[in-house]
Amino acid sequence: MNLSIRFAQRCYAMLALLLIACAAHAQTPLPSWNEGPSRQAILEFVDAVTKEGGPDYVAPVDRIAVFDNDGTLWSEQPMYFELIFAMDELKVLAPQHPEWKQEQPYKAALEGDRQTLAASGKEGLLKIVGVTHTNMTTQVFSNEVKQWVKTAKHPRFKQPYTSLTFAPMRELLYYLRGNGFKTYIVSGGEVEFMRAWAQDVYGIPPEQVIGTTFTTEFQMQDGKPVLMRLPKLDYNDDGPGKPVSINKFIGRQPIFAFGNSDGDLQMLQWTMAGPGKRFAGLVRHTDAKREWAYDRDSQIGKLDKALDEANSKGWVVVDMAREWKRIYAFDMPR
Amino acid sequence: MNLSIRFAQRCYAMLALLLIACAAHAQTPLPSWNEGPSRQAILEFVDAVTKEGGPDYVAPVDRIAVFDNDGTLWSEQPMYFELIFAMDELKVLAPQHPEWKQEQPYKAALEGDRQTLAASGKEGLLKIVGVTHTNMTTQVFSNEVKQWVKTAKHPRFKQPYTSLTFAPMRELLYYLRGNGFKTYIVSGGEVEFMRAWAQDVYGIPPEQVIGTTFTTEFQMQDGKPVLMRLPKLDYNDDGPGKPVSINKFIGRQPIFAFGNSDGDLQMLQWTMAGPGKRFAGLVRHTDAKREWAYDRDSQIGKLDKALDEANSKGWVVVDMAREWKRIYAFDMPR
Repeated sequence: MNLSIRFAQRCYAMLALLLIACAAHAQTPLPSWNEGPSRQAILEFVDAVTKEGGPDYVAPVDRIAVFDNDGTLWSEQPMYFELIFAMDELKVLAPQHPEWKQEQPYKAALEGDRQTLAASGKEGLLKIVGVTHTNMTTQVFSNEVKQWVKTAKHPRFKQPYTSLTFAPMRELLYYLRGNGFKTYIVSGGEVEFMRAWAQDVYGIPPEQVIGTTFTTEFQMQDGKPVLMRLPKLDYNDDGPGKPVSINKFIGRQPIFAFGNSDGDLQMLQWTMAGPGKRFAGLVRHTDAKREWAYDRDSQIGKLDKALDEANSKGWVVVDMAREWKRIYAFDMPR
Repeated sequence: MNLSIRFAQRCYAMLALLLIACAAHAQTPLPSWNEGPSRQAILEFVDAVTKEGGPDYVAPVDRIAVFDNDGTLWSEQPMYFELIFAMDELKVLAPQHPEWKQEQPYKAALEGDRQTLAASGKEGLLKIVGVTHTNMTTQVFSNEVKQWVKTAKHPRFKQPYTSLTFAPMRELLYYLRGNGFKTYIVSGGEVEFMRAWAQDVYGIPPEQVIGTTFTTEFQMQDGKPVLMRLPKLDYNDDGPGKPVSINKFIGRQPIFAFGNSDGDLQMLQWTMAGPGKRFAGLVRHTDAKREWAYDRDSQIGKLDKALDEANSKGWVVVDMAREWKRIYAFDMPR
């Protein structure tokens, strides 16, 4: 055989191998996760429950995965992004409410006086959430949120808040759905606030977003039906409220759950309580450089009891500094 | 050409035509519906919203269809089947509650004394629903319902209650799903009561069943998490409560809705209030022979204001006596 032909053959063979390798690499699941215990545990779990005929097989219809949002799917510092939205929105609404210039906690919020605002406590914050989230139709509120998402920037990263969603967790959502899972958000955040952008950002449709709710009322306005958001808390979707809302909205026990704080403990317990193979995971904020580092003593996203239970029961705890190649999509992978 | 060969060719050609005709017949949608205005309106609507590039096209993700249950998907006479379940269940639980022999309304219910029971009014009924539906875990309640569904028979038809689902409406659910719709139940019935059998009977999974709810509580029993059903009404999913729960659970406005009573009016109004092509339908009980005939003056399933609005706005009103070939799957088609 002619040498140049043999060379060309080898060359093509190598090219083919390279193409296969490239294709395989492109399809590697969870590319923003480093090789490590968390990635390994996820892959093993998904392999086990999707292997037809295997001992741990779960039918697609029962592959329910639930995720906390704040601190689990996106950042939550220096405060919950929904509170930042409320502060921003307060300024948008202020011209219609001249009385806020004199009245607390609105005055402090408008002036950026964090100390006075903090002193007003949970009650003060609820007032600000109330006036910015209610006394309008569901349609109007949704549009307000969409507008904010398009324009507001995070003070530290100068990026839209939806860019501060965790690339590894978005990949995980995508990976689970690719394996027949139905992915849900179960969050203490207000449900319509999240629904306004969850489809675009996470690929999670409105009916798979569960959260805290305000009471809404069916009303006729000029002969047209609307749903009015009333300044009355309907349901606080946090802590023991999470398994309750999971049952109310989904009616099945999840087999996979991810959280990041003590507010997710009961959701994780409830997920692990059913029969068969199950997965509980915690995102641990260990990366002060690329994100933030906080856990047991944090005001926001306190992770204490849930961390103890995770450690004692062998749940997966993600060390984001070590295990995530990048935090945000705009990070350079490392 | 030999005559016998030509004959054989003709024979095969006819056979082929026949096969095509049979196949086409087998695929005819809504076979239990007579040709008529309602069937026509349904087919035209679905054609319009599924025709890509057409002026009325609706993306699959927005094809949300909502159905009332009692009187719309199954019968509701001589009383809501869930109340019959409660009466039956009362007898199952009675040995653990000897005090019921003396105490009203339990005594009347156990003795089948309908007059005394009726005199106890809505409050009396709520007590019976309360003791038969609550103070147990979600798991225990679901099993009780499943057991009842398997064994109980309707007094008139001597059939399981789930056999008294309307064949034409089950076909409609199937037909809509085949055209990319997501089908939901939105009912005044208690949600876990329906979820126990809706998947088997309607092909509707638990997360697409919305209904009246009791408050549930996350509890630890012997170190295992359970959800306890408390004797406290959480949400009454009827009348104006229906659009509110549709928004809360689905977060989108349906484009297709079917009901049968005034309790469905706001759900139909809300469905019709959005932009684009929409469908509102009412099942009208006009068939005393095969089912029941009742509307404006009925205690159960009163259809009065909603009928007026349907007539004035041109919504679809199904005359079941005329338009349904059969009511139940066990009926002979006519």
